[in-house]
Amino acid sequence: MMRYVGVDNMVRLVRAVGVEAYLTGLAGYIEEDFRRWAEFEKTPRVASHSRDGVIELMPTSDGALYGFKYVNGHPKNTRAGLQTVTAFGVLADVDTGYPRLLSEMTITTALRTAATSAVAARYLARKDAEVMAIIGLGSQSEFQALAFKALNGIRRLRVFDIDSSATEKFLANLAGRGFEIEVAASAQEAVLGADIITTVTADKLKATILSDNMVGAGVHINAVGGDCPGKTELQREILLRADVFVELPEQTRIEGEIQQMPPDFPVTELWRVITGEAEGRRARDQITVFDSVGFATEDFSALRYLDDLIEGTDYYDEIDLLTEPEDPRNLFGLLAA
Amino acid sequence: MMRYVGVDNMVRLVRAVGVEAYLTGLAGYIEEDFRRWAEFEKTPRVASHSRDGVIELMPTSDGALYGFKYVNGHPKNTRAGLQTVTAFGVLADVDTGYPRLLSEMTITTALRTAATSAVAARYLARKDAEVMAIIGLGSQSEFQALAFKALNGIRRLRVFDIDSSATEKFLANLAGRGFEIEVAASAQEAVLGADIITTVTADKLKATILSDNMVGAGVHINAVGGDCPGKTELQREILLRADVFVELPEQTRIEGEIQQMPPDFPVTELWRVITGEAEGRRARDQITVFDSVGFATEDFSALRYLDDLIEGTDYYDEIDLLTEPEDPRNLFGLLAA
Repeated sequence: MMRYVGVDNMVRLVRAVGVEAYLTGLAGYIEEDFRRWAEFEKTPRVASHSRDGVIELMPTSDGALYGFKYVNGHPKNTRAGLQTVTAFGVLADVDTGYPRLLSEMTITTALRTAATSAVAARYLARKDAEVMAIIGLGSQSEFQALAFKALNGIRRLRVFDIDSSATEKFLANLAGRGFEIEVAASAQEAVLGADIITTVTADKLKATILSDNMVGAGVHINAVGGDCPGKTELQREILLRADVFVELPEQTRIEGEIQQMPPDFPVTELWRVITGEAEGRRARDQITVFDSVGFATEDFSALRYLDDLIEGTDYYDEIDLLTEPEDPRNLFGLLAA
Repeated sequence: MMRYVGVDNMVRLVRAVGVEAYLTGLAGYIEEDFRRWAEFEKTPRVASHSRDGVIELMPTSDGALYGFKYVNGHPKNTRAGLQTVTAFGVLADVDTGYPRLLSEMTITTALRTAATSAVAARYLARKDAEVMAIIGLGSQSEFQALAFKALNGIRRLRVFDIDSSATEKFLANLAGRGFEIEVAASAQEAVLGADIITTVTADKLKATILSDNMVGAGVHINAVGGDCPGKTELQREILLRADVFVELPEQTRIEGEIQQMPPDFPVTELWRVITGEAEGRRARDQITVFDSVGFATEDFSALRYLDDLIEGTDYYDEIDLLTEPEDPRNLFGLLAA
C-alpha cells in the first residue's frame, strides 16, 4: 500500500502544525535541498501547452528519492469558478522505483512557493526590512504574507489588488494573525516605504505591475507572478538596475521576468548564494530581484517534508495504487484468483 | 472529487468484463488512437536512470484530453519479491487542466502492451497464422497469449522459459482458457512451426533470445522484451532480413531492438500501416518484426477506455486529490475555515 495525503488530511495537518510553523519547517527542507543542489537531477519542466493554459510535469531526483509534480496553469479557470492552478505529486524510492507517497499539491504549491520566497529574502532583502508591499491578493497572497512573517519577521504589510473583493478576502483571512495591514489605492501607493515588494498577480500577459519609477534604492523584489512564457510583471528597466537571482537559469530565462532580457543577461543562482559561493545582498542601496518561477526541487523538498511529518501519524490514508502479487512474476494471478 | 481506480477495482472490473473482452475493447481504442496519430503531442518519455533501473513519465495529449503514465523498470526487483514494473496514470481535461481519473496501471500496462501487440499482428502476421511461440513466461506472458487469442484467433502455443516455475505458473493461469499448449525444452524447440514468435523476457542485457537460424520465412516476430537501452532480445542479423515496424521511431531507436542498428536503419511506423499509408505484410515469406517498446498514446488509449468503461458503474472511488474552494481565489480559506 502507498501513502495518500488528500486535501482533507493536508488541511488537518497544516492546521494542527500551524501555518507559520509548517512554512518554517518546509523552508528548512527547501534550504537544505538548495544547499545540496549538485546532487539533484535538474531538467526544465515538461510542458503541454494548449489554447487556455498549460499542464506540466516537474520531475527531479537526488539519487535516493524521486519526486514529480503535476501542475496546471489556466488563468481563465477563475471565471468558471475553478482554480488557476491545481497540483498533485508523488515521491518514490529510486532503488526500487516504487512510489511511496501521493499527495495533493495545490495547497502545498502555495506553501512551498511562499517558503522559497522567504528563504530567498533572508539572503537578498535588507536585514532590517520591516514593511512588505503585496501587489495581487489572489490565492497565494496570504501564504506569502505568513511565510515572510514566520521567516523574515515581517509584520507590516501594504497591499493592493484591482479587485476589492480580493482585498476583503485577504484581510479576513489574515485577521488576528499579528499583521498591521494598510490597504493602498494603487500599486504605486502600496510600494511607498516598502522594503520588500512581492508581486503575485495572476493574469497571463506581459503586464507592468511594477514600473521603474516605483522601485527605490535598497528594495528587494519578490517577483512571483511572472512564471510562464508571455507572463511578466516587472518593467524591464527595473531588471537593468537590479541584481537578479533565479532558481534554474535555463527555466527562468523561458518563464520568468528575465524572458524580457537577452539570453546572456547576468543572473545569480539562488543555491550559490545559499551555499556562500556567491554574494546575495552586498549593499544597502542595492536593488535585488528574486525572479521566482518555481522549480522541481522545491516540490521535492515539500514532498520529503510531508513524508517525514506524517510518519507515525494518522494524517494519511493508504491506497491500493500498486499491485502486490505474492509472486512478482504472477501479475496475471491477481485477475485469476 | 476525482475518479480513482485502484488495484481492487481494476481487478473487479477486468474480471467482470472478462480478460479477453477487455483486451478486445482496449485494442479498439488503441487502434482508433493510432489511426489519428497526427492529433497527438508526441515526445519520447522523460526518463530518470539510476544504477538499478529507471523511472519514466510518459505524457501525451490529443488536444482534448491529456494523459501521462508513471512507470518504473527495475529488473533486480524480482529478487526482492517486488515487481520489475509498477505503474499508475492520470487522465486530465486539457481545457481546465483538471485531472479527472487516477488509475493503477501495472495491470493496465500488461493489458495495453498485449493489446498493442495483437493489433500490430493483425496487420503484420500471416492471416492464416495458427501457432504462436512465447519465449519468456513472466508477468506479461499470459496477457500476450490472451490478446492473440481474442484478436488473432491464436489457440496453439509453444512456450519456453529458462525457469520451470515460470512455466508452471503460465500453465496454471491459462488452464481452461481454450489453449493447446506445448512446453518446449528450449527457445529453439519452441519456435519450431510457429507462425508468430513473441519474445517477452525480462533480463536487462543484450541477450540473444532469438538467433538468426531460428527464424524461418513468413514468421512475424512480436519483440516485446527489448524495451530500454542495453536490453535487446534479437540477433541483429534477423533485423537485416526482416521488415521492422515501430511505434515512435525516435524512441524505438534508443530503446528497442533497433538500438543495435545504425540510426538510418529503415523502419515503418505502425500508425502508417493502420491508416493504410504504408504496407504491412505484403508477402507470405516476408519476415516481419514489431519492435514493441510501448508508447504514451497506448497508455492514453487505456486511460480513455477505462474512463469510458467505469462511467455509471461503481468500479471507481472518489478521492480528494484536488482542492475545491468555494471561491477559487480563496485557497487559504480552506486552512482557516
